[in-house]
Amino acid sequence: MAVVQITLVKGRTREQKAAIAAAINKAMVEIAHSPADHINIVFHEVDREDWAIAGKLLPEYIADMDRK
Amino acid sequence: MAVVQITLVKGRTREQKAAIAAAINKAMVEIAHSPADHINIVFHEVDREDWAIAGKLLPEYIADMDRK
Amino acid sequence: MAVVQITLVKGRTREQKAAIAAAINKAMVEIAHSPADHINIVFHEVDREDWAIAGKLLPEYIADMDRK
Amino acid sequence: MAVVQITLVKGRTREQKAAIAAAINKAMVEIAHSPADHINIVFHEVDREDWAIAGKLLPEYIADMDRK
Amino acid sequence: MAVVQITLVKGRTREQKAAIAAAINKAMVEIAHSPADHINIVFHEVDREDWAIAGKLLPEYIADMDRK
Amino acid sequence: MAVVQITLVKGRTREQKAAIAAAINKAMVEIAHSPADHINIVFHEVDREDWAIAGKLLPEYIADMDRK
Repeated sequence: MAVVQITLVKGRTREQKAAIAAAINKAMVEIAHSPADHINIVFHEVDREDWAIAGKLLPEYIADMDRK
Repeated sequence: MAVVQITLVKGRTREQKAAIAAAINKAMVEIAHSPADHINIVFHEVDREDWAIAGKLLPEYIADMDRK
Repeated sequence: MAVVQITLVKGRTREQKAAIAAAINKAMVEIAHSPADHINIVFHEVDREDWAIAGKLLPEYIADMDRK
Repeated sequence: MAVVQITLVKGRTREQKAAIAAAINKAMVEIAHSPADHINIVFHEVDREDWAIAGKLLPEYIADMDRK
Repeated sequence: MAVVQITLVKGRTREQKAAIAAAINKAMVEIAHSPADHINIVFHEVDREDWAIAGKLLPEYIADMDRK
Repeated sequence: MAVVQITLVKGRTREQKAAIAAAINKAMVEIAHSPADHINIVFHEVDREDWAIAGKLLPEYIADMDRK
């Protein structure tokens, strides 16, 4: 049994999510031996303005990194 | 004190959510003896394309189950 | 499909958790029409010192409430 | 390293979120000595109808409180 | 940027967790193009008695499945 | 109303947690205007072996950083 909650910034396509879910499921089945029908993977997408690193919202944080 | 975070696929009505919240609250108060004013229940609704079981996004997972 | 993550202060018995899980599952099946084998309920128990309300750890918060 | 997931009712401005993130980051750096580049703060905003206290969705819960 | 919170029943070894983290990170970098230093993966391990499916704690749920 | 779930590596003292909770609560009250009695802050502490960055468990990730 496994619940995998992925928090991400918006913008991935359906194909990307399908590929990520397949890869994580494979790892959970092969390495952790979790039964596939009980592996739930959920994507929670948020806006860039709803994520902060080092106390700065992502638009500012990334702009600062690019400047360096 | 209790925090109950419910992750669900989109599509429940306000009435369904109200009934679910009332039932969970009743269980937490009567069985766990949590004080009602400190029982927070939050619904996080996601798209069907944002949930995977057995490594397949729900639209594919459900289509596969129906085929069996 | 539903994932219900319950954060609680430590101290409930196995019997209480079993009864809470049964009640929540019943609500999710009967009201939300989620399929039972895909309703995952997880209890995350934390120490009273790991929970704060109104900016006070629970031992202090509860002592303050009792004083009033 | 810290992950701070904040669940809130919708309605805060970008400026409020930036100020909250800055304040939380400051606390985590100064008090917990977490390295700033590894402090992730994420806001999950939900509708008022997706939050319940004491088993009532927020619109009803708040209306009840105001009546008292 | 990604936060991956994995809730699991206790019992995986350090080696299993390291291999799972490596596989998930690879998927997030190659498919989602997240920067590796900002991919946080956290394992939350709970007791089997703290997880329920279909309203039954895992020891009972698994015993029921084995009987069928 | 706010739920703040903080995931941290083990090792902070009760005093540190009390100070962090007080600071976060202050920010939520003053900036977000959340009512203090409905601001729940919960610390989830995990072992260093249960956290990975860049696909490496923290003991390895930190050792790699120190080497550079």
